[in-house]
Amino acid sequence: MSDKYSSVHYTNYLQLDKIIDAQHLRSGDFGEEAHDEMLFIIIHQVYELWFKQIIHEIGSVLSLFKDNHFEEKMVGDAVHKLNRVIEIQKILIDQIKVLETMTPLDFLEFRNYLIPASGFQSWQFRVCEIRMGLKPDARITYNKTVYSSVFSEEQQKELARIQSEDSLFDAVQKWLERTPFLQFGEFDFIKEYLKAVETMTDREREAIQSTTHISDHNKEMRIRMLDETQKYIFNSLNEEEHNKSIESGETRLSFKATVAALLIHLYRDEPILRAPYNLLNKITEVDELFTLYRYRHMQMVLRMLGKKMGTGGSSGAEYLKKTVEQHHIFQDFQKIATLLIPRSDLPELPKEMKQKLDFAYNQ
Amino acid sequence: MSDKYSSVHYTNYLQLDKIIDAQHLRSGDFGEEAHDEMLFIIIHQVYELWFKQIIHEIGSVLSLFKDNHFEEKMVGDAVHKLNRVIEIQKILIDQIKVLETMTPLDFLEFRNYLIPASGFQSWQFRVCEIRMGLKPDARITYNKTVYSSVFSEEQQKELARIQSEDSLFDAVQKWLERTPFLQFGEFDFIKEYLKAVETMTDREREAIQSTTHISDHNKEMRIRMLDETQKYIFNSLNEEEHNKSIESGETRLSFKATVAALLIHLYRDEPILRAPYNLLNKITEVDELFTLYRYRHMQMVLRMLGKKMGTGGSSGAEYLKKTVEQHHIFQDFQKIATLLIPRSDLPELPKEMKQKLDFAYNQ
Amino acid sequence: MSDKYSSVHYTNYLQLDKIIDAQHLRSGDFGEEAHDEMLFIIIHQVYELWFKQIIHEIGSVLSLFKDNHFEEKMVGDAVHKLNRVIEIQKILIDQIKVLETMTPLDFLEFRNYLIPASGFQSWQFRVCEIRMGLKPDARITYNKTVYSSVFSEEQQKELARIQSEDSLFDAVQKWLERTPFLQFGEFDFIKEYLKAVETMTDREREAIQSTTHISDHNKEMRIRMLDETQKYIFNSLNEEEHNKSIESGETRLSFKATVAALLIHLYRDEPILRAPYNLLNKITEVDELFTLYRYRHMQMVLRMLGKKMGTGGSSGAEYLKKTVEQHHIFQDFQKIATLLIPRSDLPELPKEMKQKLDFAYNQ
Amino acid sequence: MSDKYSSVHYTNYLQLDKIIDAQHLRSGDFGEEAHDEMLFIIIHQVYELWFKQIIHEIGSVLSLFKDNHFEEKMVGDAVHKLNRVIEIQKILIDQIKVLETMTPLDFLEFRNYLIPASGFQSWQFRVCEIRMGLKPDARITYNKTVYSSVFSEEQQKELARIQSEDSLFDAVQKWLERTPFLQFGEFDFIKEYLKAVETMTDREREAIQSTTHISDHNKEMRIRMLDETQKYIFNSLNEEEHNKSIESGETRLSFKATVAALLIHLYRDEPILRAPYNLLNKITEVDELFTLYRYRHMQMVLRMLGKKMGTGGSSGAEYLKKTVEQHHIFQDFQKIATLLIPRSDLPELPKEMKQKLDFAYNQ
Repeated sequence: MSDKYSSVHYTNYLQLDKIIDAQHLRSGDFGEEAHDEMLFIIIHQVYELWFKQIIHEIGSVLSLFKDNHFEEKMVGDAVHKLNRVIEIQKILIDQIKVLETMTPLDFLEFRNYLIPASGFQSWQFRVCEIRMGLKPDARITYNKTVYSSVFSEEQQKELARIQSEDSLFDAVQKWLERTPFLQFGEFDFIKEYLKAVETMTDREREAIQSTTHISDHNKEMRIRMLDETQKYIFNSLNEEEHNKSIESGETRLSFKATVAALLIHLYRDEPILRAPYNLLNKITEVDELFTLYRYRHMQMVLRMLGKKMGTGGSSGAEYLKKTVEQHHIFQDFQKIATLLIPRSDLPELPKEMKQKLDFAYNQ
Repeated sequence: MSDKYSSVHYTNYLQLDKIIDAQHLRSGDFGEEAHDEMLFIIIHQVYELWFKQIIHEIGSVLSLFKDNHFEEKMVGDAVHKLNRVIEIQKILIDQIKVLETMTPLDFLEFRNYLIPASGFQSWQFRVCEIRMGLKPDARITYNKTVYSSVFSEEQQKELARIQSEDSLFDAVQKWLERTPFLQFGEFDFIKEYLKAVETMTDREREAIQSTTHISDHNKEMRIRMLDETQKYIFNSLNEEEHNKSIESGETRLSFKATVAALLIHLYRDEPILRAPYNLLNKITEVDELFTLYRYRHMQMVLRMLGKKMGTGGSSGAEYLKKTVEQHHIFQDFQKIATLLIPRSDLPELPKEMKQKLDFAYNQ
Repeated sequence: MSDKYSSVHYTNYLQLDKIIDAQHLRSGDFGEEAHDEMLFIIIHQVYELWFKQIIHEIGSVLSLFKDNHFEEKMVGDAVHKLNRVIEIQKILIDQIKVLETMTPLDFLEFRNYLIPASGFQSWQFRVCEIRMGLKPDARITYNKTVYSSVFSEEQQKELARIQSEDSLFDAVQKWLERTPFLQFGEFDFIKEYLKAVETMTDREREAIQSTTHISDHNKEMRIRMLDETQKYIFNSLNEEEHNKSIESGETRLSFKATVAALLIHLYRDEPILRAPYNLLNKITEVDELFTLYRYRHMQMVLRMLGKKMGTGGSSGAEYLKKTVEQHHIFQDFQKIATLLIPRSDLPELPKEMKQKLDFAYNQ
Repeated sequence: MSDKYSSVHYTNYLQLDKIIDAQHLRSGDFGEEAHDEMLFIIIHQVYELWFKQIIHEIGSVLSLFKDNHFEEKMVGDAVHKLNRVIEIQKILIDQIKVLETMTPLDFLEFRNYLIPASGFQSWQFRVCEIRMGLKPDARITYNKTVYSSVFSEEQQKELARIQSEDSLFDAVQKWLERTPFLQFGEFDFIKEYLKAVETMTDREREAIQSTTHISDHNKEMRIRMLDETQKYIFNSLNEEEHNKSIESGETRLSFKATVAALLIHLYRDEPILRAPYNLLNKITEVDELFTLYRYRHMQMVLRMLGKKMGTGGSSGAEYLKKTVEQHHIFQDFQKIATLLIPRSDLPELPKEMKQKLDFAYNQ
């Protein structure tokens, strides 16, 4: 039986016999080993190890959200874990440079032996996508087949199970919708905010019109910018318009969650909102780094294969290029930036509310 | 008079009085200084300093090509300088992270004071684009105005002058066209290469058809891949077809230059072709890093502004997104990868030719 | 007069006329311009711009601490600003690679013209060091002269003034000393913690002695580790011993500040301690990145100059090597890690205290 | 039997069943799984995979040198492979940041279960060190035991075998010693070079003495610098002195190899010396990156453990710190930079020699 005090050795603990012995060069089976096939195998194994770690972290973050019991206290933990995912993603992106030391000609030495294996067959990467919030019908298809058909029956079932659970998108949306501060006593956030936007716009418009320092053309442009921004904000904070935008497929995040995210951005200096603000930022960063990873992956494939078909029979680079934009999950968060106005124009929070958002120690 | 032995001080040598004193926060003119405006100014000044260095290096590379006197000896120098550009570009991309520590709300504190200044007004970046090979009619326009209209008359003239000179694209194309090895005595590279492609394809096709280890579906897919690749190569190495593709705007690189680039890729192990191969690779990398820089720039703008109009009045992120693909200069180099076949199938070079490509010392 | 709505242009706003015109190649004064002198000038100007930004951020952090009015609310702001410093420092380190594209032989083309200018004459870097907390008597000297003697009288006065103000080390120490939670009603943190350490050590020692799974040699080693750790902790949390260690110059951070830092590390999950924990971490990271920067700088100088004297007449690399360790300010923070015990063995905080550390909203 | 055309699947090809299933959390055996133990296991597995790749590349480079048949043609291949090692090393260093997302307190949750496993037990890292050229008697010892005693008998034998083969240091030294250009007909490189150094020094000394632009103090310092450099070069290029320095343990690289490395640095623009110059540079970079990796590793251990003993029972950080300098293999290459003089002062190569160093095509 295992014992806490048994002597553990680095080699056994890390199961290096398995890890270090799992590189079989197919080129060697049919003639001379292609020197670069080792790199090809090892870097993909490294990717899969990191994917496992990412799934471990995101899974742990999701379990924090479970049962809608995501207390403010847990937010810090979620931020910490997503931050680790971010550091891993930076490595995933940077190490593409290692693979790029393999030239197209060197790849050709063993590429034939890999057909029809393909990165499309990375089950763990599919899990990452689903856990983030990618929905089956939003997926880019390749070779006109369902993405999951390349997996074993067991793996397909597991994918379906994971798909049926809350993704990070779902969990964050529900959590945002539970934000209690949108209506606090008399304070109605949306109403106050729109009033502030109007006041600011009116003041600015008047100032622009009365200045003598800029040309009429310039005035006109500035006023157009002001008006468009105002119109955009009013439209975005109108529930009916928002829901239309959801129906048309342009928007995914619910109205309430969007407004809560806006409030968190605006009042992030209040102690209780600081960690939620960090959480939204970390999610955006994870999402953008997956996007950047896809972009760099696509650049690398183009350099390696040009317009050749991928080993999986798909038009490799073309497929990847489409996923860069389409498999981007939290695009709606970018909208929040468009809705912000300067701090000095923000509606002030009621004193009692401010107290609630502070630490008990400061009362 | 300046003297080699006069005492020079770090502060004077670097003209730090100018450099360190060139940050004037406009927000301070109209109220309180916005803390983050300092970062905004300094990071853009850093960008401009690096742009100056890139222009210095690319200019120096171009002067090596001048008068069509680009000896093999100079290739090493060009590689070295482009490698420096690459290291600089990595920094340009990585330091976007520094700017991303500025939040959208913090940007709003001073953004109004910047209108209508804009990154579109970076003259040096335009020079970088032109030096690389961007042609006026290939530019994405914004605000329906000519890109150069934001510059002074003198700057516009200078841009026109630079545009009239050979760009890196022009210089590399001419140099490739001068490659003497496409026809060497009896050896006609294109003819030999197409023969080799045919032999390889025939052998592979037959092997696939006769194997019993894969399904008919799989066989069919593999044979389709083979056939498409063969057809693609034959089409690409046909001068007439190539010229049609140039006329239609799909391709830019001349036929002769394309074939020379292919030869360099295939026989890069011959001593005299090693540096040219490195040169083609470095150019590709510089080109891709400009592309990646634009992509990251666009991501950052989206995060900072969402869908707001840029300070220059353009739809900032939208414009940048279009330039990512459109301002990509050496796209035709990617095609080369598609034309390669494995080393073992390459036509062997005549012995006398191999000798010529080697060092004199080894004769 | 300046007007908010006057038309501002990128070139003027960034004062590019100054920035881009401040590169004068001394090699050109005495013959041919050395190509690489441009890089040498520009990269040092970039360094100085970033130093200015770092001073801006650290200065702003220090002003938050002023008058001992550093409310919990401000901690988040300090963390944010130090995080920006960290992102800048990463760039400072990474861009050494750009300078390393200059070979020793290329440096020799203009090195003679720089004597006796030297990086020792970077006034802003001295300010960074002082702001971090480097004391005059802790400085490594070079050429047996006072470090400040290379500056103008005015600059020397300014350095003395800055030295007389609170450094980040001073400010953080005072802030830690003000931590109110070391004694909370009946709860005496040190007493409770030492008790917990003892309990844990006794339990572990017994378990080790009674196991049959490990060799006597192994047992002995483990028990020795346990005992040493216990002894180390008891010694460290003894005020008298701590003060002796300060007198001997081994330690710099005061006893009270050390204990407060320990408490923050142990109970970082309590909402009110989360930001302070982040602050301590960011400070450690800034400190370590300065250290790493010095280390990389030293590596680069060794590669460029070998054992040649620096242009300032000092034994360049040797000096830099010594500063790597000696100019490391927050070394005492590393000690905290040695004092930690596992979460499950921590003394529980009194309920009333836990409430005080939580948000008012959760009461 | 395996067949080229059998259908290979990504999962099988990469043996993911082994790779992804090799993470067993010991903390789970004794209670609750510690969340961060997964990261600890996975990152170390990733390190071992990369070590395998590095060993693959360095082994391949060494085989190129075998039997003293290292033709100029192979140099390019060696450079290419070392360049890949460099890109991997950058990742090894950067991913330390991922491990640093684990806090000391989180490490304590499972650290006890790892005793006495330790990074000292990484067999592959020992192989890397030996392949680079670390000799048994130059090793820092820890716990007063032979480093190899932690390995199985079989592993120890294998280490001994590897130690008995030529390391990269040995191979490069032999190759440098074979350089045929130190004596070329009448041209005696050392003699010519020392003459050039003397001419340059005399000219500079006179110029300094006769200038009126600098103070006597400054003159004296400059002349001292000149004299010391001259003395250093004459001493270094004296075989007898060099051999004394080898006997005293200060130097390792043989006299002939040192002189050849100097020649390659000085005349690197000659076509045949370009690749050798790149090779020396890549070796230096690999060596420095191992050094930097050790330094960062040490920083990380200090942050994680402070002054606690490592799980292997050693004074972890202390040991690592010593290896940073001591396990640095190619230190003598840094000396080359000290021996250089500006290009314009170099002795010109005889015309016939220059021709031999050029491509046959240019004759």
